Amino acid sequence: MTTTSDAARVSFQTDPSSYRHWRLAIDGPVATLAMDVAEHGGLGEGYELKLNSYDLGVDIELYDAVQRLRFEHPQVRSVVITSAKDKIFCAGANIRMLATSSHPAKVNFCKFTNETRNGIEDATTHSGQTYIAALNGTASGGGYELALACEHIMLIDDRSSVVSLPELPLLGVLPGTGGLTRVTDKRHVRRDLADYFSTKAEGVGGRKAAAWRLVDEAVPRTRWNEAVAERAAEFAARSRRPSDAVGIALTPLEVTRSDDAIGYRYVSARLDREAGVAEITVRGPDADPPGDAEGIHKQGAGFWPLAVARELDDLVLDLRTNELELGTWLLRAEGDPQRVLAYDRLLIASAGDWLAGEIVGYLKRTLKRLDVTSRSLIAVIEPGSCFAGSLLELALAADRSYMLTGVFEDSDPAVAPAVILVGEINLGPLPMGNGLTRLRTRFIGDPDGLAAVEKQAGEPLEATEAERLGLVTFAPDDIDWADEVRIAIEERSSFSPDALSGLEANYRFAGPETMETKIFGRLSAWQNWIFTRSNASGPDGALVRYGTGQRAHFDRKRV
Amino acid sequence: MTTTSDAARVSFQTDPSSYRHWRLAIDGPVATLAMDVAEHGGLGEGYELKLNSYDLGVDIELYDAVQRLRFEHPQVRSVVITSAKDKIFCAGANIRMLATSSHPAKVNFCKFTNETRNGIEDATTHSGQTYIAALNGTASGGGYELALACEHIMLIDDRSSVVSLPELPLLGVLPGTGGLTRVTDKRHVRRDLADYFSTKAEGVGGRKAAAWRLVDEAVPRTRWNEAVAERAAEFAARSRRPSDAVGIALTPLEVTRSDDAIGYRYVSARLDREAGVAEITVRGPDADPPGDAEGIHKQGAGFWPLAVARELDDLVLDLRTNELELGTWLLRAEGDPQRVLAYDRLLIASAGDWLAGEIVGYLKRTLKRLDVTSRSLIAVIEPGSCFAGSLLELALAADRSYMLTGVFEDSDPAVAPAVILVGEINLGPLPMGNGLTRLRTRFIGDPDGLAAVEKQAGEPLEATEAERLGLVTFAPDDIDWADEVRIAIEERSSFSPDALSGLEANYRFAGPETMETKIFGRLSAWQNWIFTRSNASGPDGALVRYGTGQRAHFDRKRV
Repeated sequence: MTTTSDAARVSFQTDPSSYRHWRLAIDGPVATLAMDVAEHGGLGEGYELKLNSYDLGVDIELYDAVQRLRFEHPQVRSVVITSAKDKIFCAGANIRMLATSSHPAKVNFCKFTNETRNGIEDATTHSGQTYIAALNGTASGGGYELALACEHIMLIDDRSSVVSLPELPLLGVLPGTGGLTRVTDKRHVRRDLADYFSTKAEGVGGRKAAAWRLVDEAVPRTRWNEAVAERAAEFAARSRRPSDAVGIALTPLEVTRSDDAIGYRYVSARLDREAGVAEITVRGPDADPPGDAEGIHKQGAGFWPLAVARELDDLVLDLRTNELELGTWLLRAEGDPQRVLAYDRLLIASAGDWLAGEIVGYLKRTLKRLDVTSRSLIAVIEPGSCFAGSLLELALAADRSYMLTGVFEDSDPAVAPAVILVGEINLGPLPMGNGLTRLRTRFIGDPDGLAAVEKQAGEPLEATEAERLGLVTFAPDDIDWADEVRIAIEERSSFSPDALSGLEANYRFAGPETMETKIFGRLSAWQNWIFTRSNASGPDGALVRYGTGQRAHFDRKRV
Repeated sequence: MTTTSDAARVSFQTDPSSYRHWRLAIDGPVATLAMDVAEHGGLGEGYELKLNSYDLGVDIELYDAVQRLRFEHPQVRSVVITSAKDKIFCAGANIRMLATSSHPAKVNFCKFTNETRNGIEDATTHSGQTYIAALNGTASGGGYELALACEHIMLIDDRSSVVSLPELPLLGVLPGTGGLTRVTDKRHVRRDLADYFSTKAEGVGGRKAAAWRLVDEAVPRTRWNEAVAERAAEFAARSRRPSDAVGIALTPLEVTRSDDAIGYRYVSARLDREAGVAEITVRGPDADPPGDAEGIHKQGAGFWPLAVARELDDLVLDLRTNELELGTWLLRAEGDPQRVLAYDRLLIASAGDWLAGEIVGYLKRTLKRLDVTSRSLIAVIEPGSCFAGSLLELALAADRSYMLTGVFEDSDPAVAPAVILVGEINLGPLPMGNGLTRLRTRFIGDPDGLAAVEKQAGEPLEATEAERLGLVTFAPDDIDWADEVRIAIEERSSFSPDALSGLEANYRFAGPETMETKIFGRLSAWQNWIFTRSNASGPDGALVRYGTGQRAHFDRKRV
């Protein structure tokens, strides 16, 4: 992990031997993830991570640990998140770090931490690894929000430890990682009590915290260790995770990097800084899939779908964090479409296998990351492309797609025209955050359109047919292709980046909302607005004035 | 209507004889509302309302017309919204007005226009008055969004008239009145086509607009008048509105005003500018209700529930628009709780009567306005108060409520302690924008809590019992009352107004989202953020540069 200056490229790759802020211990079916933030281990300069406060670097390690528990430690059935420090669980995001961060850095940071917390909930729901928050001291702000992402919250009842969301009264901002949504929608704290709680900087502890549902139980210090162990064992006993499973190693990703290119084994990106464009290409598998689930285990991290999910995940995080001015991402896929479908079929046929399940889950979460990425996504589908099954999701995630009708008559007249293929994996296993597949979201309110597409599952669809079915946006021929695609890209780069972020955040989530989409939509959008306001981030704003002894000065006009 | 300078108090009261921008014509079951904006009739200075572009003043008249059609013209069964100008339906919100407006003014303007468009949809769904957009010329931006609020959209097919959402490409902002949500979630335009459409300033017309579902039909000029008349008659024929109904007059509200008080017949407000508090009191009925629906018709605008709905509606709009620094609203209700329940019962018993239905609907919409008001709402429940049935909704809409346990021993020891009463009207007829009653939203995920409350319907509940049932937040006694309430108000005034708006906008809408809540939550929050960004509103921003011949200068970092 990069731990140099703010201007340096942030890397999202780490492993437990490099952790500076977390201790991972595994005891049979129970893992304990103890937060022990190194005060001087911040990713940036100018702040100290006191009281288990965190920055992006701390969260990158947490994300890594959650992923590795799924893949490397499949026997784990419950995960206790606690603190290795006394009297404090976690003080939340470091305030000085926030106050000195740029607006994009704040927003990006909140997005990633949100995704990690959603991943924790996903592990509880889908991986049979139930997260328990064992708050052995005060959990405030983001610290309490981390607990809210867990299935069960235990708070030590020692007359001083509390849970709190002090962001509003102390900092003039909102809790940034789903707190307001989870308090009411997940924990069912009554809205007026939630209102009181979120304006009371000193928090709520003991039996009152339990009575208000802010925590599940308040446990006396004398019974603490025993109660945590009991609860961990109880949740572990409920898991359907196989007890004899052997993990696979998430070996380090191999990546090559130059100023204008990033290359992994199957995923690569060309960075065109002048045009503000990143051209992302995902390559299909080089060989046929193994015959059964056992073969997946043998290939481990080298298994094509897992490798692609990991590489794409890393690339999305990298570009999102480090390349703010590359506002348009072109999505390409190359290879043999039938092979991709064969891999997909193996994954679906192996649905009972824990590893196959984890791989589909990883792909699902990586695609969700794309859905909430504030970049314009344009899929480009040409001869030789490979938008089939799981890779078709890239085109379905895109804001727009262009598919060549026919071939390039001058340069490559003999090649077969591009096709796309809908597979079984597009019809369920890879839902968006709104709970619907990308296909279903695309055809919201149009069941006939959806049925027509589903009927074509497995059929190679050329451009005219794909356009007719509504699977691609435009299908220009050779004559119009270059101009249409170029204009689309140039136009996109000419628009207001902010307005594009807002447009995309709305259009990508047609239909129902879930707790997850509420967090990224309603809550984050409000937070972004508040972050830009002088009352928070101006020189006299609360976020900047915090800790100076001077009170913030507010423009009192309500908006 | 006030039509003087921007600094002047905006009034929301008008009537058709004063309209400057709309012509209302009624022909049997069909009303035609023709937009004919007076270029020099703007509410503020410094802009001309060309091409049927609008400002708040234009929308105040539209709101008035929609309300009067419901109450004064009950025989109307379909409403055609069209333009009295040639070649142009409506160019949307006036850009110069937006560019020169303050941030709060822009946000307030969008909120009110959104509410009016929601009211149009509500009239179609609940009042049997179906709105038809007859676009006899181009509808761009807010003009197209007005059409989107209608049930059926007809576009003249004359090779030049189009629908468009040019906000993003031309102004660097989003369509501000629900366009992005309605295009996908209501009209089911495919998200990638919607994306293309919303970045194409020149819009889409003719058959393509119909094929993409942007409009329901493209009609040749030669058939235009005939087709509009046909469609109006068809929708009118489907209405269950009684054909022999006689309207009631929405007589002018009588209001007295001083610098620190606003008074209507049943609703009043004291404005404490130093504290930043408005103290709103709603008085219960002076007399028992009439015996049946006929009595409601006889009393007309004087019927207590209708008078309260109108007065409260006007007060909310007034304070929201004109008193930005009164950030906390105390809500009080005075009178005889049993009498309120008697009025509520009459309304429910008269459910088949169109006027009774309209009155409940008006109350519903006024309470919804409160839900999306960016002010902290605190209900104060003391002896002599009247939070029963429909008035209990005020306390349920509040962010927090305080109810005195017992009485004020020193000042009024002999009075009866305060009670609150749940009535049948709290259990269904007054849903929030999320489709749930305020009680159901309050007890989201807590069916036992909700059932316990429902069981107490009709029972006077004193403070201890109300607190135990979760109907009020706190129930301090005489000794603690003054301090607790004072501290709550003072604290609220000390917090960041922006963070409070964000907090309240999240906590008030626990549970499911609807198109309506998506518009106020996800979409408006993004728009507010974009409005504050330099790329839109800065000196080089697109909103400010529009029309100057100079291109906007964007900070290209994606956030």
